[in-house]
Amino acid sequence: MKSSPDNKRDISPGKSETPKGFAALDSVNFPDFAPGSVWLVGAGPGAPGLLTLLGYHALTRADVIVYDALVAKQILEWRRDEAKLEFAGKRGGKPSAKQQDISVRLVELAKEGKRVLRLKGGDPLMFGRGGEECQLLARTSIAFRIVPGITAGTGALAYAGIPTTHRDTNHSVLFLTGHDASGDVPSGVDWENVTSASPVIVMYMAVRNLPKIANTMLGFGRSADEPVAVISNASLRHQSVHTTTLGKVSDNPDITKLPTPALVVVGKVVDFHGDLDWYVKALRENPLG
Amino acid sequence: MKSSPDNKRDISPGKSETPKGFAALDSVNFPDFAPGSVWLVGAGPGAPGLLTLLGYHALTRADVIVYDALVAKQILEWRRDEAKLEFAGKRGGKPSAKQQDISVRLVELAKEGKRVLRLKGGDPLMFGRGGEECQLLARTSIAFRIVPGITAGTGALAYAGIPTTHRDTNHSVLFLTGHDASGDVPSGVDWENVTSASPVIVMYMAVRNLPKIANTMLGFGRSADEPVAVISNASLRHQSVHTTTLGKVSDNPDITKLPTPALVVVGKVVDFHGDLDWYVKALRENPLG
Repeated sequence: MKSSPDNKRDISPGKSETPKGFAALDSVNFPDFAPGSVWLVGAGPGAPGLLTLLGYHALTRADVIVYDALVAKQILEWRRDEAKLEFAGKRGGKPSAKQQDISVRLVELAKEGKRVLRLKGGDPLMFGRGGEECQLLARTSIAFRIVPGITAGTGALAYAGIPTTHRDTNHSVLFLTGHDASGDVPSGVDWENVTSASPVIVMYMAVRNLPKIANTMLGFGRSADEPVAVISNASLRHQSVHTTTLGKVSDNPDITKLPTPALVVVGKVVDFHGDLDWYVKALRENPLG
Repeated sequence: MKSSPDNKRDISPGKSETPKGFAALDSVNFPDFAPGSVWLVGAGPGAPGLLTLLGYHALTRADVIVYDALVAKQILEWRRDEAKLEFAGKRGGKPSAKQQDISVRLVELAKEGKRVLRLKGGDPLMFGRGGEECQLLARTSIAFRIVPGITAGTGALAYAGIPTTHRDTNHSVLFLTGHDASGDVPSGVDWENVTSASPVIVMYMAVRNLPKIANTMLGFGRSADEPVAVISNASLRHQSVHTTTLGKVSDNPDITKLPTPALVVVGKVVDFHGDLDWYVKALRENPLG
């Protein structure tokens, strides 16, 4: 460890006298948000403070914001006064998903010359169907940019004090979705492979199907002692963490009624939650994260 | 899709007249960064614009910043003038890793009453060994907070126009590290399971061992036609994306010399890169992302 990094990284020793705080970023040359283009922005796992600087910059430039159900109200309020909001929410399991309609709407708004901000919970390309939206934008020659966000998987685990990876437990982590558009366990998932895929498995939207999934994993040889955590409303005031084991999931039928959105973690990293649970009640009073 | 969301989400129609732009965030009540506490902050995959608002807030409050090799210089320059920098970098494969020393140093600085910002590339808990640092902080009763960051896996794929998941290709994704502290392929990884774990596999720090890994996967039955992408310096000016197939990796011995840091993606999602490669040369001129 060096305490004098200047040689190594060429950090300028005499820093400029520009205003500090967030105001300093107003004189920074962020990428231009051109009229007629679409930015797909990930809003992160929930807390407004987990939005990226690029995401905030987009909010202050957009003409119209097409947003999903899981985007925090505070984030939307950071938009400029003139920006219009369009709700394009979908909630797990409901047949209301009209992905093609959303993609078409983005093209329509861009063709009107609008700066279109497509704001999605988590990361746009990780269980976010942003790839499908980009495909239509590319086919119709609409310029677009992807601003990644913190996916719920890594964000929720951080706020639950559960390391996604830890030297003592795992060199890998599997993320998967626990239901398809119909609300069922996705048929395209090979559960035998999933069960042995990794010491740590993080599942999105899996609470409703959790007893079924747990029994499937037990059937394919995962240990009944394997720790399980269900993290609800991660990074928000009403965050809650429920811990159990794979073998005990089915003993508690109410587990499927835990609040959503929720992430399910299977693996020994769950055991760190007891010691590393830093997001205590007093901190949760702050709505920014 | 609704064009009038106000009923649904209770968005205040008459917005306040506070200054817009980033300056508006200076009057927002971000969480207090208390003296004698440690914040572990993920700086994201590279581009400074991918830092979170909470991460930037921490930079403007910290007394000392203990940072890793992959944190962008621009991010460090956003610190306040009085903040001290300490370099704690480790680079892949080098035996210089002294994780315990870093953890001890964080405790030492916190005990001096400093606001200690531990700034790591990507996400602190995903291949970042932040869990070990938190363990020592918890054991020594130092208050800490984890600010998740965009992990290189999702960030790099977004900047390469490669969806991490796509309805047509995968309901899951496996992230793993391609070397251990000694630089070798990690012995704790069950490669037979990894090979069949998921349609999409994203590997961190795997370039040096890529021919060995590709041959292992081919041996366990992964198709030689499986597309592979190596994304170097993701989200930065000198980003480059090299595509090949699993069967052809070994035909090109220079593949191990591709620039690092790099992410390796195996799976059909790589094929989207051709159509969705939005991060063109003109955009890369902007150093913020």
